[in-house]
Amino acid sequence: MTSKAGGRTGGRLGLIGFGAFGRLTARHLSDRFEILAYDPAATDDLGLIRLAGLEEAAACPIVILAVPVEALAATVRAIAPHVAPDALIIDVGSVKVLPARLMAEGLADGVRLVGTHPLFGPQSGKDGIAGLRIAVCPINDDRAARRVSAFCRRALGLKVFAVSPEDHDREAAVVQGLTHLIARVLLAMEPLPSRMTTASFERIMQAVEMVRHDSPAVFRAIERDNPFAAGVRERFFALADEARAELDGPES
Amino acid sequence: MTSKAGGRTGGRLGLIGFGAFGRLTARHLSDRFEILAYDPAATDDLGLIRLAGLEEAAACPIVILAVPVEALAATVRAIAPHVAPDALIIDVGSVKVLPARLMAEGLADGVRLVGTHPLFGPQSGKDGIAGLRIAVCPINDDRAARRVSAFCRRALGLKVFAVSPEDHDREAAVVQGLTHLIARVLLAMEPLPSRMTTASFERIMQAVEMVRHDSPAVFRAIERDNPFAAGVRERFFALADEARAELDGPES
Repeated sequence: MTSKAGGRTGGRLGLIGFGAFGRLTARHLSDRFEILAYDPAATDDLGLIRLAGLEEAAACPIVILAVPVEALAATVRAIAPHVAPDALIIDVGSVKVLPARLMAEGLADGVRLVGTHPLFGPQSGKDGIAGLRIAVCPINDDRAARRVSAFCRRALGLKVFAVSPEDHDREAAVVQGLTHLIARVLLAMEPLPSRMTTASFERIMQAVEMVRHDSPAVFRAIERDNPFAAGVRERFFALADEARAELDGPES
Repeated sequence: MTSKAGGRTGGRLGLIGFGAFGRLTARHLSDRFEILAYDPAATDDLGLIRLAGLEEAAACPIVILAVPVEALAATVRAIAPHVAPDALIIDVGSVKVLPARLMAEGLADGVRLVGTHPLFGPQSGKDGIAGLRIAVCPINDDRAARRVSAFCRRALGLKVFAVSPEDHDREAAVVQGLTHLIARVLLAMEPLPSRMTTASFERIMQAVEMVRHDSPAVFRAIERDNPFAAGVRERFFALADEARAELDGPES
């Protein structure tokens, strides 16, 4: 960990999107980079970044796209004319196959692309991110992906999983798809008991708490933009139906 | 907490059933009571109890029925002829309406009945039970229920919820019904990812771990012998179906 006194040795970094996740990103990178953030909805720099225009932010040597997955296609179109020929462009979406394709199709050939999925958010990362997990997916430049991985490991203390976009989405369809699906149903059942609870029920409710404030866009990305999510859901519901049939069957 | 040197001041206690929960009970009560345990399947006294015949165990002034809910009717029939006229009989089942009825119908009028549901098990209680929860349900003797509550609070350090059998089952249908239903479906989906996991998914998996080794009898008691469980399941599945329809609908 370098202190601010160590200087922003990483140079300029464009941050497209200054929502909840953009702000989390800024908190952990502002001591190393001069961050130029573009977000038409942002009004406060939090003392971490400089609010900039799209052109200026998109022209930085490193650009992080901290926008919802469903806004990524439009974002790529908007930044494409301004991106430097050898820039490093990184997305942080909850799915990786679709962003990899959108960035590869929408940006010039020399632009280096790396997909990342920080497996944490403003809630789970609120007490620090060291020890938390991030998936790093090479797209068109393995060396760039290795450098991003090394930075995440050494500078941020994250556990890094280097993985292809496909393998990422296959695992995330289970990990996030099931978590959000279960949480969504339980949130709809509120108020839930809080007195006679078991340790296991409390763990489940802690999980629900962690994703309670995730935006609907995150839910849609996880459940709709992951090509494997529908299959996982189908399996979950088929097994749930089996359990239901067994429990509500003639023997009961 | 009294030490063994303090003597078994509580007198003789009959323990019907020396399975996983009976053993947990013995570990926490053997310093205060001389425990006579009856279990035809038990071969080892663990240095905590004396293995005894059904008649002798059932004739103790206090008798704890640590048998599966589905075995309770037969157990009550078996002990009834031997139970002392003013004995205190306590069950520990995961549901409370049915055991309360079985004990009240099957045992003589002067016998004092208290229902309890320790909201923990051999897994969640393996590192000690102080601070964990127990529900205590009066059945036919409020004073006996208050004494059991006081003992659980002072001697065992448990958090006690005094509650009617109906109110207990209504909450437990949600707490345990949902936990075990979700765990059952997730266990059927194994192997589940263990690398690219989120904090919320890990909490859910911790919950699954805690109930993984619960016996099928516990599952049946929770899902079948709780009069409110079917309604909770119905609601869970209806909301899950709504989520499914929305996600797999024409927009996706």
